[in-house]
Amino acid sequence: MDFKLTVLGTASALPTVNRYPSAQVLEIRGRLFLLDCGEGTQMQMRRYSISMMKVEKIFISHIHGDHLFGIFGLLSTMAMSGRTAPLEIYAPAQFATILSFFKANFVEKMNFETVHFPLNHIKSPTIISETRNIEIYAFPLNHRIAAYGFMFREKTPQLNIRKDAIERYSLSLQEIGRLKKGENIYREDGSLLDCSELTYMPYVPRSYAYCSDTAPFEMLPSWIKGVDLLYHEATFDDSLREMAEATYHSTARQAAECALKAGVSNLLLGHYSSRFRFLDNLLEEAKSVFADTLLAYEGMVFDIPLKKSTCNENI
Amino acid sequence: MDFKLTVLGTASALPTVNRYPSAQVLEIRGRLFLLDCGEGTQMQMRRYSISMMKVEKIFISHIHGDHLFGIFGLLSTMAMSGRTAPLEIYAPAQFATILSFFKANFVEKMNFETVHFPLNHIKSPTIISETRNIEIYAFPLNHRIAAYGFMFREKTPQLNIRKDAIERYSLSLQEIGRLKKGENIYREDGSLLDCSELTYMPYVPRSYAYCSDTAPFEMLPSWIKGVDLLYHEATFDDSLREMAEATYHSTARQAAECALKAGVSNLLLGHYSSRFRFLDNLLEEAKSVFADTLLAYEGMVFDIPLKKSTCNENI
Repeated sequence: MDFKLTVLGTASALPTVNRYPSAQVLEIRGRLFLLDCGEGTQMQMRRYSISMMKVEKIFISHIHGDHLFGIFGLLSTMAMSGRTAPLEIYAPAQFATILSFFKANFVEKMNFETVHFPLNHIKSPTIISETRNIEIYAFPLNHRIAAYGFMFREKTPQLNIRKDAIERYSLSLQEIGRLKKGENIYREDGSLLDCSELTYMPYVPRSYAYCSDTAPFEMLPSWIKGVDLLYHEATFDDSLREMAEATYHSTARQAAECALKAGVSNLLLGHYSSRFRFLDNLLEEAKSVFADTLLAYEGMVFDIPLKKSTCNENI
Repeated sequence: MDFKLTVLGTASALPTVNRYPSAQVLEIRGRLFLLDCGEGTQMQMRRYSISMMKVEKIFISHIHGDHLFGIFGLLSTMAMSGRTAPLEIYAPAQFATILSFFKANFVEKMNFETVHFPLNHIKSPTIISETRNIEIYAFPLNHRIAAYGFMFREKTPQLNIRKDAIERYSLSLQEIGRLKKGENIYREDGSLLDCSELTYMPYVPRSYAYCSDTAPFEMLPSWIKGVDLLYHEATFDDSLREMAEATYHSTARQAAECALKAGVSNLLLGHYSSRFRFLDNLLEEAKSVFADTLLAYEGMVFDIPLKKSTCNENI
């Protein structure tokens, strides 16, 4: 029941000795999702023992090299390693050209299908994919070119019936089924079986939002409201706010302001300008606005544990 | 007066945790040449403190991803770092498509010229570039697709006059000039100024040949005759000879046989299949044929020192 983020790259346009370009792997309940794919992603996946073959879906935020140049090597390695499972790629429309170029020039043999879902019709948070347990949203960001953020939310689980309620109210199977779906039931004798009293949510659904690259904009906090973890780019610090504006990026403070407004649980900073050898300033700047801020680093694993609710109180 | 090779990548098609795809930097007398450019080349250059901005010429052996996928990130970084110096790229004709694709899709601003020299007309060792001190040759290899090796040879230096000869024979400036060019001089009195006696070569010209990827073929040893250092791919070992044949690669033994026939001073193996976790077998196999064999590894520096000749004997 994992909900676990592994950071593969925290650099912005220019990588450094220790920082790779953008890439992250989100593992939810055994399913692997790759977020962006900067140069060296396949090597980083090997380094952190993440199976390339198990990646189900790739999400490309925008068509800038530092978020994309690893895709050629990754797809080649998947092809050479005999992948047959189809691969879904959610990316701006221009990615179609890139995929065609790759296939025309570099593929000797590829036994799996790549399905590209273009994102350019998306103007507000939209479900682009779902599994039994999660919904995946894309939403526009505010960058120099078309760019998209992604949000992963576990679906609201089916309610559990309180153990003591079944016997106490002699609940029938049919009544149990309806209560689990959240219905209140009026019995023929006029009594009420109150769903909110007889049931509880077995766990709190978890959520993650990935926002890179973007300048701040008004709607963003409301779109990612209350996520457990927000990754927000922090290319610059306060002293370079004008440069952030000019390049449609954010400062660490602006990332924190977004986190605060969105009421998220934790903020993860990344996409650091190569001019920052040390990142303490970025962290302090963000923490002065939003305390629960962390610096992303290569190899960092952020686990969002399942918060199980158990309800043993008597009614 | 350096003549120094730095190995950036020794993997073949599939990189491993420790092995990057093919790339090497050859530094000759302060000039930097990049040989192949697998994914992660720019990060490896940073790791080993090699300036990307100072690379004058790039040599791409063939259009397979593991020799090429780093070019996008490298060119992007050069562009963003404000490079203005033109960059020469020697690569098969198909590289033109790749360069156009890159410029059309990924370049916001690029203030340097890229000059692509296609190699496909080359059928035997041909000088493709020269500087004041060196000649650079390309020659065809024997791979699944058009592939080229490269050889760097210092030019034969101008001869030095033996110190004692000038006074002893009262050499005129004109005579000194002619002797330095290697001419024998008959004086009017009938005496001979014998160039081989009165001059010496100030140093022994150095040379390096890069051969990746290739199956063995008859002409290769004669084309790289006597180089100081030969890098020859050794994707497989003896037990996988059939696979080497089928994929147009070489075994470690075949690399060593080439080195032996060519009479090189040192052999460097690389381009290892990812199936080999340890490389001792490849080394032993090659050494059983050619003793002066070394295994290339990431970060390895192979320096070919200048062998100066001094001549202080009296004539």
